[in-house]
Amino acid sequence: MNIGKVSKRVESVSPFYVMDIMARAKKLEEVGQEIIHMEVGEPDFSTPQPILEAAKNFLDIGNVRYTTAQGLPALRDKIAEHYLQEYSVIVQSERIFITPGASGALTVALAALLDAGDEVLTADPGYPCNSNLIRLFGADAKAVKVSDVDDFQLTAEHISQSWGGATRGVMIASPSNPTGTMVGRAQLNDIVTAVHEQKGFLISDEIYHGLVYKNRAVSALEITDDVFVLNSFSKFFGMTGWRIGWLIVPDYAVSAATRLMQNLYISAPTHSQHAALAAFNGATRDILHQRRDEFERRRDVLYNGLKALGFVITNKPQGAFYIYADCSAFTDNSYTFALELLEKGGVATTPGKDFGVSQPEKYLRFAYTTTMESIELGLQRIKLFLQSRKPVDSKR
Amino acid sequence: MNIGKVSKRVESVSPFYVMDIMARAKKLEEVGQEIIHMEVGEPDFSTPQPILEAAKNFLDIGNVRYTTAQGLPALRDKIAEHYLQEYSVIVQSERIFITPGASGALTVALAALLDAGDEVLTADPGYPCNSNLIRLFGADAKAVKVSDVDDFQLTAEHISQSWGGATRGVMIASPSNPTGTMVGRAQLNDIVTAVHEQKGFLISDEIYHGLVYKNRAVSALEITDDVFVLNSFSKFFGMTGWRIGWLIVPDYAVSAATRLMQNLYISAPTHSQHAALAAFNGATRDILHQRRDEFERRRDVLYNGLKALGFVITNKPQGAFYIYADCSAFTDNSYTFALELLEKGGVATTPGKDFGVSQPEKYLRFAYTTTMESIELGLQRIKLFLQSRKPVDSKR
Repeated sequence: MNIGKVSKRVESVSPFYVMDIMARAKKLEEVGQEIIHMEVGEPDFSTPQPILEAAKNFLDIGNVRYTTAQGLPALRDKIAEHYLQEYSVIVQSERIFITPGASGALTVALAALLDAGDEVLTADPGYPCNSNLIRLFGADAKAVKVSDVDDFQLTAEHISQSWGGATRGVMIASPSNPTGTMVGRAQLNDIVTAVHEQKGFLISDEIYHGLVYKNRAVSALEITDDVFVLNSFSKFFGMTGWRIGWLIVPDYAVSAATRLMQNLYISAPTHSQHAALAAFNGATRDILHQRRDEFERRRDVLYNGLKALGFVITNKPQGAFYIYADCSAFTDNSYTFALELLEKGGVATTPGKDFGVSQPEKYLRFAYTTTMESIELGLQRIKLFLQSRKPVDSKR
Repeated sequence: MNIGKVSKRVESVSPFYVMDIMARAKKLEEVGQEIIHMEVGEPDFSTPQPILEAAKNFLDIGNVRYTTAQGLPALRDKIAEHYLQEYSVIVQSERIFITPGASGALTVALAALLDAGDEVLTADPGYPCNSNLIRLFGADAKAVKVSDVDDFQLTAEHISQSWGGATRGVMIASPSNPTGTMVGRAQLNDIVTAVHEQKGFLISDEIYHGLVYKNRAVSALEITDDVFVLNSFSKFFGMTGWRIGWLIVPDYAVSAATRLMQNLYISAPTHSQHAALAAFNGATRDILHQRRDEFERRRDVLYNGLKALGFVITNKPQGAFYIYADCSAFTDNSYTFALELLEKGGVATTPGKDFGVSQPEKYLRFAYTTTMESIELGLQRIKLFLQSRKPVDSKR
């Protein structure tokens, strides 16, 4: 056979440029250089002890069988309770699906909503997997340029102006990766109205909820039931490797989502589901709130430090653990700049071009998923690195 | 918004009829009736102790972070070693991906290979998720009727005769779900040649390897490197709820599969990967071989028992834990028969129409994933149930 050919579909899935950075960082570490990692989109804290204990207690019974496709009823009930307590909204647990991470939640939502040729509006910059998954289903992500004026978030105006004949819906993320900016209640309300007017669907990525440093994030479920909400135990709850998240769908999509879960996954990992039962405990919550406070302190140090060095950060991030910094004072190509900063400065970051096509060459994403000591050392290294460089010859 | 409409894509995903059976069985159990479960495609044994211990030891460290998209190098090396020891074939670990179950493996393989409008040849009867996933990607599963003459497996002749303009490849499964029948070496060799002649791809589902009762199963990797092999820790290794399997791809698809793993899953569950490191240990193997022997004894009892009752089983299953029994001596509708057998006989089975469109009304699938006592009790109940029924009025 040896046709040696993959699908056109998969050729539309772009690689992550940060992989080049990570591979190079690993090489440097292998020859003894110590690298400060600010490229990693994963909390450095380990899973909270009460969650680990719950997992071990479950494994003592040893009965790690499939759950139903929707997931453990007890866990879905706890999530429903979480929405009541945190957001004062009632979500029927029948609408909640336990998924293999938010990746699984997004895959199910997209498969339930998209046919080939459909189009989804997404913010640029945004998380690259979103548009890749949209393309995997033969649909297209229409990247809408967002900017500092709108806190790097889609607005009702963007939606109305960008809606085209093939547009079926909108995807938003608050807090956003890479910018850490949020959609406020009034803006979210307008977004829902705009999508409603077009008779489209709304997908709301809320995986960084909880990791928010002033006012709490608003869930789209506070505005409407007619929304697909993605969430995850990975980021706030510190359970990345457990591959567990959740999806909330409108009533009309419950049957479709059930069939998709059955066929795509059978179920989310059972031991992860039992572990997550402890994620909403008081003891866990205390640990998570301490970590959130530590993330806030790190943000402040990194934000102030980068600004002092000449990076431009127009919108102070309100959540998640990223800073999207304009480095155009130093370079007209953030990708080669990131490689140089790694090579000569020993600091790994993610280049803007992993997040879209809207002036990515101006930006670097810094993640504060490392210790305060590392962040301070990183800032010193960046300072020395910038001093060692000649001023950029030309600016575009 | 409230468009209230799911995609055409998801409407092509058929429901599992066994869900009706399971829901009804649950209702009966809730009112105190005891049901013999022969519908379950999941081993009744719990995960072997050495695997559970490995998981708990890993959780003691508490560092459940993402792995690389391909999976733990140590686990991929162990799988490569497994192929050398069990099949005497060399598989470079670069071609091995750790996936969220065989479901994840199949999803990655299909996304890497299929574009909209493509067609894949599959055996009818066969596992229903296969054709559902093919349709999810906008392609079509061309169900080829297989029969007792060919051990319910595709042959080179089927492939050559069924190949059409849109056909891109073939999917086989050995041992098969629902029939438990296998593809022998010569037949597999002919299949590879036939697919080769058409310049198509071959996907070989080998998830029941290990659960084989006489000669060992032949892997497609023994014949060619140019094949996508699906395997799983679920069935033979007793790790269903852990959601972990593997995919082996030809060299030309390594980059595509890596990008798909990144975007669809980030990685397979990390704690499951660490647990699976113990799956190839000598102690685990001894446990698994005892269980395999027990499955073989159960098969013999169920096979002989069903035949004695008048079910027709043309091809004695050689692997997996299913018997696909022709019940047309008793009914012309195996679905209503299954419901009646549950209701009046207290035995749950899976109706043929979950496995295709080729005379499914003649068949029931019996799974011997329950204790010998239950199997014997189940056979007594079926006997009483059959005696209580009037002979069927008309036969088609």
